[in-house]
Amino acid sequence: MIDFCLFGAGLIGSVHAGNLARHPKARLRYIVDPRPEAAQRIAAQTGAAIVDTETALSDPSIRAVMIASATKTHADLAMAAAAKGKAIFCEKPIDLDIGRTDQCLAAIEKAGALFQIGFNRRFDPSFRALKQRLDAGEIGSIEQVIITSRDPEAETEEALAGGGGVFREMTIHDFDMARNLLGEEPVELFATGSCLVLPYYAKHGDYDTAMFVLRTASGRQCHINNSVRAVYGYDQRIEVHGSNGMLRAGNRMPTSVEAFGSEAVSRDKPLYFFVERYMDSYYAELDHFIECVLANKKPDVGASDGRKAMILCEAALASAKSGRFEPIKF
Amino acid sequence: MIDFCLFGAGLIGSVHAGNLARHPKARLRYIVDPRPEAAQRIAAQTGAAIVDTETALSDPSIRAVMIASATKTHADLAMAAAAKGKAIFCEKPIDLDIGRTDQCLAAIEKAGALFQIGFNRRFDPSFRALKQRLDAGEIGSIEQVIITSRDPEAETEEALAGGGGVFREMTIHDFDMARNLLGEEPVELFATGSCLVLPYYAKHGDYDTAMFVLRTASGRQCHINNSVRAVYGYDQRIEVHGSNGMLRAGNRMPTSVEAFGSEAVSRDKPLYFFVERYMDSYYAELDHFIECVLANKKPDVGASDGRKAMILCEAALASAKSGRFEPIKF
Amino acid sequence: MIDFCLFGAGLIGSVHAGNLARHPKARLRYIVDPRPEAAQRIAAQTGAAIVDTETALSDPSIRAVMIASATKTHADLAMAAAAKGKAIFCEKPIDLDIGRTDQCLAAIEKAGALFQIGFNRRFDPSFRALKQRLDAGEIGSIEQVIITSRDPEAETEEALAGGGGVFREMTIHDFDMARNLLGEEPVELFATGSCLVLPYYAKHGDYDTAMFVLRTASGRQCHINNSVRAVYGYDQRIEVHGSNGMLRAGNRMPTSVEAFGSEAVSRDKPLYFFVERYMDSYYAELDHFIECVLANKKPDVGASDGRKAMILCEAALASAKSGRFEPIKF
Amino acid sequence: MIDFCLFGAGLIGSVHAGNLARHPKARLRYIVDPRPEAAQRIAAQTGAAIVDTETALSDPSIRAVMIASATKTHADLAMAAAAKGKAIFCEKPIDLDIGRTDQCLAAIEKAGALFQIGFNRRFDPSFRALKQRLDAGEIGSIEQVIITSRDPEAETEEALAGGGGVFREMTIHDFDMARNLLGEEPVELFATGSCLVLPYYAKHGDYDTAMFVLRTASGRQCHINNSVRAVYGYDQRIEVHGSNGMLRAGNRMPTSVEAFGSEAVSRDKPLYFFVERYMDSYYAELDHFIECVLANKKPDVGASDGRKAMILCEAALASAKSGRFEPIKF
Repeated sequence: MIDFCLFGAGLIGSVHAGNLARHPKARLRYIVDPRPEAAQRIAAQTGAAIVDTETALSDPSIRAVMIASATKTHADLAMAAAAKGKAIFCEKPIDLDIGRTDQCLAAIEKAGALFQIGFNRRFDPSFRALKQRLDAGEIGSIEQVIITSRDPEAETEEALAGGGGVFREMTIHDFDMARNLLGEEPVELFATGSCLVLPYYAKHGDYDTAMFVLRTASGRQCHINNSVRAVYGYDQRIEVHGSNGMLRAGNRMPTSVEAFGSEAVSRDKPLYFFVERYMDSYYAELDHFIECVLANKKPDVGASDGRKAMILCEAALASAKSGRFEPIKF
Repeated sequence: MIDFCLFGAGLIGSVHAGNLARHPKARLRYIVDPRPEAAQRIAAQTGAAIVDTETALSDPSIRAVMIASATKTHADLAMAAAAKGKAIFCEKPIDLDIGRTDQCLAAIEKAGALFQIGFNRRFDPSFRALKQRLDAGEIGSIEQVIITSRDPEAETEEALAGGGGVFREMTIHDFDMARNLLGEEPVELFATGSCLVLPYYAKHGDYDTAMFVLRTASGRQCHINNSVRAVYGYDQRIEVHGSNGMLRAGNRMPTSVEAFGSEAVSRDKPLYFFVERYMDSYYAELDHFIECVLANKKPDVGASDGRKAMILCEAALASAKSGRFEPIKF
Repeated sequence: MIDFCLFGAGLIGSVHAGNLARHPKARLRYIVDPRPEAAQRIAAQTGAAIVDTETALSDPSIRAVMIASATKTHADLAMAAAAKGKAIFCEKPIDLDIGRTDQCLAAIEKAGALFQIGFNRRFDPSFRALKQRLDAGEIGSIEQVIITSRDPEAETEEALAGGGGVFREMTIHDFDMARNLLGEEPVELFATGSCLVLPYYAKHGDYDTAMFVLRTASGRQCHINNSVRAVYGYDQRIEVHGSNGMLRAGNRMPTSVEAFGSEAVSRDKPLYFFVERYMDSYYAELDHFIECVLANKKPDVGASDGRKAMILCEAALASAKSGRFEPIKF
Repeated sequence: MIDFCLFGAGLIGSVHAGNLARHPKARLRYIVDPRPEAAQRIAAQTGAAIVDTETALSDPSIRAVMIASATKTHADLAMAAAAKGKAIFCEKPIDLDIGRTDQCLAAIEKAGALFQIGFNRRFDPSFRALKQRLDAGEIGSIEQVIITSRDPEAETEEALAGGGGVFREMTIHDFDMARNLLGEEPVELFATGSCLVLPYYAKHGDYDTAMFVLRTASGRQCHINNSVRAVYGYDQRIEVHGSNGMLRAGNRMPTSVEAFGSEAVSRDKPLYFFVERYMDSYYAELDHFIECVLANKKPDVGASDGRKAMILCEAALASAKSGRFEPIKF
């Protein structure tokens, strides 16, 4: 049994709290959140105590921390937890700044802390099965990867202004998936972005509609397409083409019901957004983390994966301005 | 090159005429139809001459006849053509009366005429591929067959009154398919019919909605469901369950277009009716007939298949009244 | 918060125990099972105490019982729990004997006990959505229902010999679904069964392969097909045809991965069996029960639904012998 | 009735010859091909006469020419036919050289000749339906287009060496489709190509695996992915994302048969290659051409569409070398 402290009682914190409650080898002991009512809601459901950071990290019975607080607090919390010998599960990104990220990685490394980054899509049952079949050589040598990743609804202008921008908040997951599936590190990245959905994306120097091409040294290619608004729901699909065929994984639908009417045949649109679509992956990533902590094993997706995905975001921002393949230097 | 005479210039006659025009080894020479304008329409497109029955059958250059005229003329035309040594392609049924059917079969047999009955569904590319895979043993021993067969639109009362009834006009195709797929002759048949669509089906002692169960001596089972009205289009599907799995074949859609909208994901409803759905099968059955004529080979689906399907219709009519398994005596 | 006692720590008892642990308004307090090791396994995971029936039913803090023990104990436990004022969730069937079932229903009625029967399929998300759309009139008046229900693997001969037979153990769920979807009570039932899978089904006077037709007074029809062995997994599908179209619900697959290879395009076969396929429905039926207990509301599926499904089983057994529509007398 | 002369009796010439034979308003009168046996094969099937270019173009009864000969002969034949007042159907490309293409366009323009280019995919039933629904505004304003276009099998080295290269021979169709679907002309194009399939593509300075991004002035984006070898068959798919949803069109399969086995559920892989996949589109483009000739109407896809697609090929070749968005100047 592993005792946890959860930092952050927002939407994603609640998802993790629920999974901790379900997991037979985890116990949620503490919640840290500056907003009392949010913390209180989770505490009531789980019986965890609301404490401050100092108390939580000083309690030697707390073996693991779950960092789901505001992005700007991630690096400090991770470093503090590492210093206290805790195992760390941290939502992405580690930090929006590469310098701060590197500093945090160095501290984690020095402390020898077990660290897992919250790239939950790697644990989606369909994407994971696809990856395992790739690794087993089912379609031979990988040649092209195509990632479709479209949010159902744009952020509010307020959220957009307060965040790291679309590439760093949204595409970062796709960049991690590209690295994961290409089987080789990308060395060049091309990006182009437009503002076709809402004018305030342009106002904030951002893009609501974007396409990307990545390329590895051996010539493998990856395309990503993004939109911040797909009215038919969260669209998350992957295709991998190899020398012996194609593997693809698609969306999840609420039900299997099909209606045959006088105009058309219709079925459910995909599940609404990430909480619904990736519900199973949040549990699976927690399960992987717990398994790693118990076996003192390095998680499949660690701090350097978080860092590399951020470097791809930087290259994408540069390319969207330069109109050319930008080199990637990890 | 085989010279044909076509009897009947109605809807199905036109389909056959078009296929004869396309087929590299067939030539449509004569058309016989008491309705001049129908015959004229096909003649104009194909260059065939409009003649009477006597002229057509007496011309020794005519090697094959295509009988697509009114049902009550089938047996006489088939017997006359057989007497003249023609190869015969005859739309189903041979006759609505079993006695007349037997008389016709005897005449065909005596003349040694090559005879193919128009059970076109056997030549549908999907159903035929399914049958070939069954025969190749892909799913082991056959256990259950499920046939869905639903027309898009009810007949007019006039057409209903003038025809042989729903079982003999519509279900007969399903009975043939059941025999074809079960791999053994059925020995018992259960039927139940209702009038849920249009009151005039009841008025004419008929059923617009029906279910059937057939059973072979070894215990294989087949279910058929029928409706005369499926607002979403012609619904023609087959499932065969065997000891090693299931094979199924489905509907055909006009296009592969899918629309992902804010309410649902929708695609085309199935093709409207038999001419659209079975367009390829009409060509394929003609091709099979021509191949048989050229090789003097017995067609895969002959006069006795037409007769047996009619006997199943009789058993179905009896069962729908008796409420019990009726024995089948071929 | 509702305190529960669970009777039966077998496969299905474990599923219920897991769901009780997850449910925010339930607490599993006691486990009763004559097999100590099975009870111990659940106790270790949940913290529940292992007690005897007397202790559990005498504890006034226990508000609800979950009966998942051997079939022959259901009626006695339900009557004892009813006498103590407990809310009762009981796995189907109440009893294999209609007389005992009626006696149990009378006792429950007399005690005014809240009673829900475990027809979990009614709570399957897809089947429930289909039913709600039927009730909302989406496809107009119901005309035909087609239920496909095939187990992945036959029972052992020992299990078969010790159980109530295929119709009472397996088809009973389909009969309940037929009643649920037809929108009218069936008045006649036809059944035919064969032994095509394993000889020991015949030896025990049972059938491993069966087809059914039910009919309501107004002429609505329902077909059910069953097999005890579908090598491709648990096959659970529903089609409902109405005056304005068709609604259908299908199987669930483990992942959405599709492989495009040089021979074919392949995807996952359906989930293995009922625990996997109906995982969500077990949680949903528990949630409904808890909601009913808290609101003192009659569950959607009660004791008389259990009784009526058993009567349909009796009619099916009679029809499979008589070869005719058997009348149904509820 | 329109009398045609066909130039070129190769694979694509045979397809056109078959469609001319089927079309009720067309007659194939002449075939011109330097290879006597190829011409003879088509002549035997259709009854057309084998003549030389001079004879064919000088016959005033020939109203239309079908140019399906070697690429390098297209421009001369088109100019000669235009000078004689023939309507011209010309396979793409007009010429691999933009200068020659411009010269040919000027001659056609000057002669006032009706000219249709063989971008057959525009006439594919699914792609055409998708385009019509886009034009009808079904998904609002177009934002992104994604084109998947993968051949089943690489060319031989000989064919590659003798042709115009992969971009000009294969991608040209996708570039035309991109222009057709974007609803605005592209102004920038990015391309990257690799040699992952066969070394001789590199040897000839070509690419067997490529990705493209096009962009219009308003910021609409299009991605194309190409491979010269998809072992699962010809992969031709389109997705268009708009402000109100997505429309997509997929591959065509030989049959609808699905096999449910103990390992997986499998269905047919897509049809093998362009002749099978686009069989209907070849007929439909001919039908459109004939309709235009009869009505003296400008075809939907003309000489300037052929020229613009070639210009996109040039930009793609430049971008694959420069690694940057290349401007497009039509």
